[in-house]
Amino acid sequence: MSEQSRITRMRGYRWDAVDLKEYKTEGSHFRDITRQTLMGEREDQQALAFLTRYFEVQPGGYSTLERHEHAHAVIILRGEGEVILNDRVERVAAHDCVYIAPWSWHQFHATGEQPLGFLCMVNRERDRPQLPAEEDLERLRASPAVAKRLRG
Amino acid sequence: MSEQSRITRMRGYRWDAVDLKEYKTEGSHFRDITRQTLMGEREDQQALAFLTRYFEVQPGGYSTLERHEHAHAVIILRGEGEVILNDRVERVAAHDCVYIAPWSWHQFHATGEQPLGFLCMVNRERDRPQLPAEEDLERLRASPAVAKRLRG
Repeated sequence: MSEQSRITRMRGYRWDAVDLKEYKTEGSHFRDITRQTLMGEREDQQALAFLTRYFEVQPGGYSTLERHEHAHAVIILRGEGEVILNDRVERVAAHDCVYIAPWSWHQFHATGEQPLGFLCMVNRERDRPQLPAEEDLERLRASPAVAKRLRG
Repeated sequence: MSEQSRITRMRGYRWDAVDLKEYKTEGSHFRDITRQTLMGEREDQQALAFLTRYFEVQPGGYSTLERHEHAHAVIILRGEGEVILNDRVERVAAHDCVYIAPWSWHQFHATGEQPLGFLCMVNRERDRPQLPAEEDLERLRASPAVAKRLRG
């Protein structure tokens, strides 16, 4: 029998033996956000075609506004937020799902008094995110709701 | 811009426009369990190499004891339970992760007063589960903890 099945317990939104990392190691278009990779990254978990990450955004913080060819499967675990999805801004709360389709511009904002915590699953093989050019930002800001919410 | 990004909101552990299904459509080695496939199944979500499902087990219920080549990435969302992982029985509660390695025997049990609800992510391409033969059951029951917990 395989001996590699593994329980990783959580306490206070920190998981045992999982590093708490900066959201990104380069760039500056984000604020107050951390990352924990829960499953799929270890050498003995390569059978999964995807990674399961947990991101946490402190109140007032936000993720990078970006897009890419790969999709995101997001499930909110705690807190309240707003997410920019192309020309829309949507409110999200615990256990809502957000499917982010290929090439959709997206940015998560923590809008409540608690941190916004969410799972984000992605294909293991994926492209690098793109940042918006000035013309992309102009097009996005044509939506008043997006113009008001967008940061970075 | 792509128009297929999608929010699916939850209320009371039911997600909008997501069918509540029987756990399995065949077999009888399980009890009081339902399934909702949250992301990855729709025709416009094929960019994901995996499916995100939510399973809910009523108190006293359990999933099928089975194994397969593909792995599971599980995150508990609510309730308390015990999971058989080969020769071990482990307690799990909200936000614990369970990585189920290829060919690990596994069975989830709802042991608290609330339902046990968990996310289970799997590769889109995967093999069919195998049920235990009598000799597998004998080997598993050599562990007293497993012998006490095992059902089906």
